[in-house]
Amino acid sequence: MLAQPVREQLRAIVGERWFRDDAESLVSYSYDATPLYQSMPDGVIFPSSTEEVSAIMKVCAAHRIPVVTRGAGSNLCAGVVPLHGGLVMVMTRMNRLIEIDQDNLTATFQTGLNTKQFHTAVEETGLFYPPDPSSMIICTMGGNIALGAGGLRGLKYGTTKDYVIGLEAVLANGDILRTGGKLVKDVAGYDLTRLLVGSGGTLAVLTEATVKLVPKPDYRRAMVAIFADLPSAARTVSQIIANRITPCTLEFMDGATIKVVEDYAKIGLPTDAEAILAIEQDGEESQVERDLQLIEQICKSAGAIQVKVAATPEEGAKVMEARRSALAALSRLRPTTMLEDATVPRSKIADMVLEIQRIATKYDVQICTFGHAGDGNLHPTAMTDARDPEEIHRVEKAFEEIFEAAIRMGGTITGEHGVGHVKAPYLEWKVGASGIDIMKRLKAAFDPDGLLNPGKLFAETRKRIVFTGSEEAASQEQGQAQAQAASGTKAGEADGNG
Amino acid sequence: MLAQPVREQLRAIVGERWFRDDAESLVSYSYDATPLYQSMPDGVIFPSSTEEVSAIMKVCAAHRIPVVTRGAGSNLCAGVVPLHGGLVMVMTRMNRLIEIDQDNLTATFQTGLNTKQFHTAVEETGLFYPPDPSSMIICTMGGNIALGAGGLRGLKYGTTKDYVIGLEAVLANGDILRTGGKLVKDVAGYDLTRLLVGSGGTLAVLTEATVKLVPKPDYRRAMVAIFADLPSAARTVSQIIANRITPCTLEFMDGATIKVVEDYAKIGLPTDAEAILAIEQDGEESQVERDLQLIEQICKSAGAIQVKVAATPEEGAKVMEARRSALAALSRLRPTTMLEDATVPRSKIADMVLEIQRIATKYDVQICTFGHAGDGNLHPTAMTDARDPEEIHRVEKAFEEIFEAAIRMGGTITGEHGVGHVKAPYLEWKVGASGIDIMKRLKAAFDPDGLLNPGKLFAETRKRIVFTGSEEAASQEQGQAQAQAASGTKAGEADGNG
Repeated sequence: MLAQPVREQLRAIVGERWFRDDAESLVSYSYDATPLYQSMPDGVIFPSSTEEVSAIMKVCAAHRIPVVTRGAGSNLCAGVVPLHGGLVMVMTRMNRLIEIDQDNLTATFQTGLNTKQFHTAVEETGLFYPPDPSSMIICTMGGNIALGAGGLRGLKYGTTKDYVIGLEAVLANGDILRTGGKLVKDVAGYDLTRLLVGSGGTLAVLTEATVKLVPKPDYRRAMVAIFADLPSAARTVSQIIANRITPCTLEFMDGATIKVVEDYAKIGLPTDAEAILAIEQDGEESQVERDLQLIEQICKSAGAIQVKVAATPEEGAKVMEARRSALAALSRLRPTTMLEDATVPRSKIADMVLEIQRIATKYDVQICTFGHAGDGNLHPTAMTDARDPEEIHRVEKAFEEIFEAAIRMGGTITGEHGVGHVKAPYLEWKVGASGIDIMKRLKAAFDPDGLLNPGKLFAETRKRIVFTGSEEAASQEQGQAQAQAASGTKAGEADGNG
Repeated sequence: MLAQPVREQLRAIVGERWFRDDAESLVSYSYDATPLYQSMPDGVIFPSSTEEVSAIMKVCAAHRIPVVTRGAGSNLCAGVVPLHGGLVMVMTRMNRLIEIDQDNLTATFQTGLNTKQFHTAVEETGLFYPPDPSSMIICTMGGNIALGAGGLRGLKYGTTKDYVIGLEAVLANGDILRTGGKLVKDVAGYDLTRLLVGSGGTLAVLTEATVKLVPKPDYRRAMVAIFADLPSAARTVSQIIANRITPCTLEFMDGATIKVVEDYAKIGLPTDAEAILAIEQDGEESQVERDLQLIEQICKSAGAIQVKVAATPEEGAKVMEARRSALAALSRLRPTTMLEDATVPRSKIADMVLEIQRIATKYDVQICTFGHAGDGNLHPTAMTDARDPEEIHRVEKAFEEIFEAAIRMGGTITGEHGVGHVKAPYLEWKVGASGIDIMKRLKAAFDPDGLLNPGKLFAETRKRIVFTGSEEAASQEQGQAQAQAASGTKAGEADGNG
């Protein structure tokens, strides 16, 4: 619990109503959408302005209180679990869309703004903000920026990283930093904007952002290609890219995922197929039609057993919604759903999917794979049960081997979900000892006292924490995981990230 | 001069031939394309591999020897002038194009590779690397990356920042760091790749890079619109963007620039016009033609007195080459050409061009303005004479006021040339005291002993160094500038940056 004078200072900043430390509030903000992680904060605070955030940070700096900044909590990397207690700073009151600037094709907003609401407002002006994480109905733009969120349209349009051109952030000492601006070209000093994007709340509290917008495409059309075997589907992905076509969306679902999604969404997917590609193109109508024709030919010559172009926009939208619902659908199968985010160069998709299947068999775990095939970003998803430590241990081992495989193929441990706490033990595999060393120095440069989201990004132990009584287990973490497993928390279900 | 044992260690690493400290070599590497700056190094070294760079850095770290990494030296921010002496590390032997990966649409190369050669090799495969700084015939990819180079195609395609997805770099202590990879999605830790892009040799020595490629557009066509007054041309730029058209290139030249370019390039530009827009679109043929028709209408209704669409690709290429030659053409007028890089939100182009004209009149200096109107990136260029300290003082004052105006309009002090030494005194105007403080901490995190390119990015004095006997002058710098002025160095002429 925070000391009485601190609580009074915090209440004086935000008002009585917006600082809470009752048991219900503390429990509510003790976890996020990531299964198996929970830790109690000492207080929850809801600032309404950058000035309030600055004042809060000054109090926290003076009293060495950890601060975890949180949007909707829909992340899948235990990114906002308050592992070291302290204050959870919830940004959802700071949700104002400040401006859509149609002359400069930019938008500026407070970071607590909901992503879907933002999309809607932008599209009403005839402009377009492409990044579309599957959690967009509930997540916040600030969360997207903090974790460098991706989405289904990343192949053609890039991810959040490629759109943020200006930020307002509050530093650990309470200073307010402004980076970038309404400028598509700006090389004045180090790129602090891009350093803060994806920094997961460990460097600063993001309060405002300016993003680039693009003209909204006139026309879009979707298609589905069905395959009797996995390698044919994967080869098709490579061939589409090799033919110099960049679809807006190029999504993959394996056979197991198809069955579950069809059962959930009921849109007529063939449940006996081994792989599906859901493809969408947007742009000028005649170009889109030409691209779809060429893609259809490529799918067929690569061995698709059926190719179906959506007859209406509604039919197309249904296909993409079905794909977006994959995690929600899969999470109905077993009590615990663990979704990963390994990413490989797109030419390695076939190898990677087969490797995931081999690993799942080896450890006797149920793993479905879906994801953004066009950019090599796969979401192998384990359906498991947190109450069974032995099974969870096998799942952990399988994921570990999947990360290893991704790295071996020139890939990465996370394409769009972020490192957070969950992947911290693996970060060194990707960035090396010198990468970890430099990143720790950067962290210290921004946050010398380690107050911002401690326990994230950098592993507190070198070994993976597993949820069994094995020699690798860290007893405290294990205790938490078991407590959560016992309480049946399954936050991933409510989310739909991926 | 370096101590004998150090020289021996360096010679042992690269071989006798590739370490030099004769007077001619030292003078040759004492300046870059920026007028008025010169400082002698203690040695020049030409590594042939990353391992050699690492070994060199270990020697320099042990003996606290400053290191300035250099490509072609075509920068315009005194970015590679060895202000504190030490070693100039010339990367031009490390110029191997390692791979063009057509499946993953990436290219990997050593950083000493020439930009134009790289473009040619990429385009031979049917792929395209858009960033096209005007100096591309002579500059290196490493220089482009170190300074975040832009170019004429930035409006539609973005700049170097938007293409670099992986780096190999040698740190100040000789450690080798690898970031990113052939991955369009990667959120594993802080974005070190983007932090190094634009860091101007102050954080690490860049040895290898991986960049994204895009399919080469099938078709391109250029046009020229001629205006009797400046505000009409500027309004046209805004209206093109507001009509949701994103041309590949949207360049501006004012009346004074037109006269000089026509005299130099002789392509039939109307020398009585007050402003010209040179516009190019690329993509699918019918879409390009539609865009050009719409742009033609917009130009006419905004008051263009003539609009001319290129009849042939050769004619189009000539227009763009004429624009690229602007700096070379202007530099023939007077002994010294000083080119700046102020950038504003694109909606402020008209205000900014008029403000530049007002400021030029106020200080009685000759300033021509051209640049990348579509992304708000202007190059006001002063034709002056470094031998006349009083005139140079007025030029400096004028530029200072231009930077102030850019910042006031929400712009930046440099859009694509980088801060280097020249703009260091102004960086705080853009990023604020907390921005400077954080950037200095980042610098210290990478390079605690300050060995990498010292004297760049951060001002060594708070005031602008001017080349007169005024109270603001730093006598050493003044001495150097006068020495160079006396020797008639005018490196900008050989370059064609901008």
